[in-house]
Amino acid sequence: MKNICLLGATGSIGEQTLDVLRTHQDQFQLVSMSFGRNIDKAVPMIEAFQPKFVSVGDLDTYYELKQMSFSFECQIGLGEEGLIEAAVMEEVDIVVNALLGSVGLIPTLKAIEQKKTIALANKETLVTAGHIVKEHAKKYDVPLLPVDSEHSAIFQALQGEQAKNIDRLIITASGGSFRDKTREELESVTVEDALKHPNWSMGAKITIDSATMMNKGLEVIEAHWLFDIPYEQIDVVLHKESIIHSMVEFHDKSVIAQLGTPDMRVPIQYALTYPDRLPLPDAKRLELWEIGSLHFEKADFDRFRCLQFAFESGKIGGTMPTVLNAANEVAVAAFLAGKIPFLAIEDCIEKALSRHQLIKKPSLSDIQEVDKDTRGYVNSILT
Amino acid sequence: MKNICLLGATGSIGEQTLDVLRTHQDQFQLVSMSFGRNIDKAVPMIEAFQPKFVSVGDLDTYYELKQMSFSFECQIGLGEEGLIEAAVMEEVDIVVNALLGSVGLIPTLKAIEQKKTIALANKETLVTAGHIVKEHAKKYDVPLLPVDSEHSAIFQALQGEQAKNIDRLIITASGGSFRDKTREELESVTVEDALKHPNWSMGAKITIDSATMMNKGLEVIEAHWLFDIPYEQIDVVLHKESIIHSMVEFHDKSVIAQLGTPDMRVPIQYALTYPDRLPLPDAKRLELWEIGSLHFEKADFDRFRCLQFAFESGKIGGTMPTVLNAANEVAVAAFLAGKIPFLAIEDCIEKALSRHQLIKKPSLSDIQEVDKDTRGYVNSILT
Repeated sequence: MKNICLLGATGSIGEQTLDVLRTHQDQFQLVSMSFGRNIDKAVPMIEAFQPKFVSVGDLDTYYELKQMSFSFECQIGLGEEGLIEAAVMEEVDIVVNALLGSVGLIPTLKAIEQKKTIALANKETLVTAGHIVKEHAKKYDVPLLPVDSEHSAIFQALQGEQAKNIDRLIITASGGSFRDKTREELESVTVEDALKHPNWSMGAKITIDSATMMNKGLEVIEAHWLFDIPYEQIDVVLHKESIIHSMVEFHDKSVIAQLGTPDMRVPIQYALTYPDRLPLPDAKRLELWEIGSLHFEKADFDRFRCLQFAFESGKIGGTMPTVLNAANEVAVAAFLAGKIPFLAIEDCIEKALSRHQLIKKPSLSDIQEVDKDTRGYVNSILT
Repeated sequence: MKNICLLGATGSIGEQTLDVLRTHQDQFQLVSMSFGRNIDKAVPMIEAFQPKFVSVGDLDTYYELKQMSFSFECQIGLGEEGLIEAAVMEEVDIVVNALLGSVGLIPTLKAIEQKKTIALANKETLVTAGHIVKEHAKKYDVPLLPVDSEHSAIFQALQGEQAKNIDRLIITASGGSFRDKTREELESVTVEDALKHPNWSMGAKITIDSATMMNKGLEVIEAHWLFDIPYEQIDVVLHKESIIHSMVEFHDKSVIAQLGTPDMRVPIQYALTYPDRLPLPDAKRLELWEIGSLHFEKADFDRFRCLQFAFESGKIGGTMPTVLNAANEVAVAAFLAGKIPFLAIEDCIEKALSRHQLIKKPSLSDIQEVDKDTRGYVNSILT
């Protein structure tokens, strides 16, 4: 029996993680969880899984939850402190970090210090502070297990292989909602258009990131840190069917890929069962003859400027990826709120990157300051 | 430094094995080799690699080679005895069995007894006597490493995985030279047409087997033995580009595949370097965006009757696969000699299978007798 802490339970990854736990009740127990403010969604989860500790995102939700009575003992926590408390509980074996945005960083570091295995679905943690998280995980000898389908694919492809033999990571990209649109057509797209992802059902922020390809850019940076691979050895290829989830090329030109129907429960469960696998009976079997054909295209940096920004920021390193991520978070939120058009997301990021004074080896507080400063700056240019 | 015995040096796999040895002269040494009668091709090989022992296929070639003088000491052997002698030499670490047909069986068993690692490109060895070879390898604790691209793909996909988690092996098939022809169109195809394989450059026998899909059928039986998987868990899918070389589906529905440009040196080298990998600088990198799309179709048993014969023979077991293989060898030779039309290959096999009196647990001599009897029978119905 593995004891699980789930940070971000009411999000898309959170819900699907609970789906996996429900399928294997004899294998996993939910010890603690967090959610932001979606109490209507959270309460049935709490009742079903009976965690000992639940952390919430804001004070109103905290008081509302406090007033409820459950048939079992359940402590309530709040904010970052609550996230940390949930993550470091003694019983916890695996922390699933399915939080959105850079709020996941400190709880992850604290969980690492308590030697918890980290299942990481929160890419901002590695993007904003990859060198710190990686060093921390190495220092405390804690495994960082990817939950993202692309990184899980690479991680699976690397099983039984030696790092010295890797030539290249090839990350596949669906291209998102607007993959067939020209840049001219992108000028007038709406929030509603952007939220229609062709293959995956995901949260709003990541669906927009998928349409700008920033999601893929963040994944490139995450892959760099997770697998310790230089950016020059990471490629992105457009693959609209999202069947090959990513690949590793070895120096004998052999390529190992992981494939499947798009179902996030597969990589989530793999992180929880690693290095073993458990059945996932109600996931759909991949029948390639039913799909008929798989398509691949070159990922064009002119078409997908965010992808280029991400590669460049990653190569520069230091605080640059923090700026990339913070500027993107604010710009995407502004787009979702109807404040800026779709293509202005890129412009905001570009402006933030070009004004930034790089800190080469930033401390955690440098990162937090740059993050805050960037958010302030992007907010200031929105109006 | 690994010492290699190469059985079948002048065939397609043999030549490409020598290519790999040439690329990594600091890693591999050719200690012994065999060839049939192609002395013009063999002599430059012998001069270049300076093996200590060379076995030949017939007496004329034996005398011809005996008369030659080499600048180094080289013993000459003959026939099955010579193959065995080459394979069991004390210095030999790995025996690459790249022989054609069931002649490879006894030398493989003898090499296993001498604890040589077996790199198996000769599928008839497993098809005709899978249970004996497998038991032998288990008894002497000898690894059987696949060289066929499909089995190597499965073997690579299984690295770091547990057998209990396998749901299915998915073997890809190019469909061979006639994949787009109807059965009616197959009635009038010529030997010349059949020898034009669209993706792989291989020997004549295997190219015909590829056109009838018997090659895939033999691979299914081979996979059954190599990976200890029931036939019900082996599928074949048509994939005309031969880029995905085969796949393994696990019980969580995750599929691991091995991909690459069609180049037999990759699986050959993997068998020689396993569990490590060495660079293969002049192999072509796989760029999926250059290829553009990969296609998949259901493998139709009515269209490809040999595939059905193979599955049925495999499931029945015992001496049935021996009959399948022997009948196929004789029928393909007859087709290549212009004695029978293409579709008569299937008819010969079907007749041989339906007249056969099954031996459920055949000994080696039972297998040899059934092999001989089947060859006699098929030859008798040819005229």
